[in-house]
Amino acid sequence: MRILITGAAGFLGSHLCDKLLADGHEVIGMDNFITGNAQNLAHLAGNEKFSFYRHDVSNYIFVSGKVDAVMHFASPASPNPQSAAGYFNLPIQTMKAGALGTHNCLGLARANNARFILASTSEIYGDPEVHPQAETYTGNVDPVGLRAVYDEAKRFAESLTMAYHRYHKVDTRIVRIFNTYGPRMDLEDGRALPNLLKQALLGQPLTVYGDGGQTRSFCYVDDLVDGIVKLLYSDEHMPVNIGNPVEMSILQFAESINKITANKGGITYVDARSSRDPQRRRPDITRAKEIIKWEPAVNLEEGLRRTIPYFKEKLGLA
Amino acid sequence: MRILITGAAGFLGSHLCDKLLADGHEVIGMDNFITGNAQNLAHLAGNEKFSFYRHDVSNYIFVSGKVDAVMHFASPASPNPQSAAGYFNLPIQTMKAGALGTHNCLGLARANNARFILASTSEIYGDPEVHPQAETYTGNVDPVGLRAVYDEAKRFAESLTMAYHRYHKVDTRIVRIFNTYGPRMDLEDGRALPNLLKQALLGQPLTVYGDGGQTRSFCYVDDLVDGIVKLLYSDEHMPVNIGNPVEMSILQFAESINKITANKGGITYVDARSSRDPQRRRPDITRAKEIIKWEPAVNLEEGLRRTIPYFKEKLGLA
Repeated sequence: MRILITGAAGFLGSHLCDKLLADGHEVIGMDNFITGNAQNLAHLAGNEKFSFYRHDVSNYIFVSGKVDAVMHFASPASPNPQSAAGYFNLPIQTMKAGALGTHNCLGLARANNARFILASTSEIYGDPEVHPQAETYTGNVDPVGLRAVYDEAKRFAESLTMAYHRYHKVDTRIVRIFNTYGPRMDLEDGRALPNLLKQALLGQPLTVYGDGGQTRSFCYVDDLVDGIVKLLYSDEHMPVNIGNPVEMSILQFAESINKITANKGGITYVDARSSRDPQRRRPDITRAKEIIKWEPAVNLEEGLRRTIPYFKEKLGLA
Repeated sequence: MRILITGAAGFLGSHLCDKLLADGHEVIGMDNFITGNAQNLAHLAGNEKFSFYRHDVSNYIFVSGKVDAVMHFASPASPNPQSAAGYFNLPIQTMKAGALGTHNCLGLARANNARFILASTSEIYGDPEVHPQAETYTGNVDPVGLRAVYDEAKRFAESLTMAYHRYHKVDTRIVRIFNTYGPRMDLEDGRALPNLLKQALLGQPLTVYGDGGQTRSFCYVDDLVDGIVKLLYSDEHMPVNIGNPVEMSILQFAESINKITANKGGITYVDARSSRDPQRRRPDITRAKEIIKWEPAVNLEEGLRRTIPYFKEKLGLA
């Protein structure tokens, strides 16, 4: 297949490029670099099956020649208010990537009679009141809340994708992506894993908010990309959760990180933040197991071992 | 003020034109007539303070001269699957009016340093699990459900409006409009009131689905427009529900209609539809009462008496 990937220079986009090239496909990457990083694609320079366009997909998309699949992975995605690349600092761009960008990508897929896959997110569930979250859960998102710029953009993108499927017969797929980690992730993305792993590698005490009882589930990027590609190859049109259902408390997680990194810094407890970070989020992956025969294979210890060299390099410790 | 109203040829848009012209403002109407009706504005022909542009606001908006307020009321709004003007038959246009149309209107408001008001809807609450619905309720909308083309478009429009307010300092307002009736409404809009009133005026038995225990609240259009204009004149940026909180069962409502219209047709009970119409929806108008000192003044009997001549004319009974 000849596959367009928007957001190709992002964490997930760049891994998708690698995986699809390895599967023998021709890949066209697109990114405007407002949050993507050209370094993530540097190793593909000279690959005959890879081409790249620097472009804002919220404006317009044209790709010469036939495209067989369009994968829309372009969007700011970091919830870190301190990060210039986070969606709190790029609110309008985030909403445009979700609405105008998705609209443009669906138009291209329709014109090419191509498959389309939307990178959606567990954030469409908001601060969930049901655990774990199955695809039927309608979520708890405040449309006028601060996080809505990301959450509602993705909800809108899902609705538009289904509208193109139902009314224009576009061959669409929707993947709801849960917390993911691995090489090329943004160390400043504000989520628990990079924050704690950074501290551990620097020999610092790990900061745990509140009592550390809030839980997270983390999926290693190779597992996630494997699931996305299986969904692309499938015929499933309704949303599919892809994420790791192993749930652990932030405290357990901090202790595991200290053990794996042999960090002697211990743990520091500080007051729970006022941020509206969800207390819990965990995917129900029943549909992924049944429909695309997918489940994660990399456990946390192995995933962290594969991720640590990248963190060390970024931190100047390599 | 010089006020742009998109969707000016619609039910609510046209009443807003009348009210704002009566208040002494200059009004620019805009509509592409895919669901609006030129007849709704015919009486304004020759009014020096009124001008009209036939235009699709999802494409682009330009208005020459200074604009002091932008009111975005353009969208298909009927949930009737049988109506060519309903959002089920105009899914992509509905999503574009909510996303691209709102984006264009906010851009115009920003460029003019103008007030902006978004016509949002009780549909953002979906099939509510909390009664009555206060503005803090985050709703129960399935982003990949059939109704999402309308519901998620409006949720997105709210989020984008708040983003423009927070980040671009646009002077925005959001009105969440509940069930409304009155002259110029679409007799085919698929909601309970026009369906039952039509049957009553034609002397037919009124069709009640299930046991008729599902409830509705109906606001007369003059009350609604009064609330919207009060909100426009206010400084409130967070969403405000405008609707009538008097809740009655469909059965009570059918009996009232038969009494007011002296219809001898009685009531016919049929199986509850498989449609996902909400079982209940009722506004909590505490915020409207406190912030803009608004509450409805027209009771159902009076509202129906004012509406019946219009229905009779449309039905050829006048």
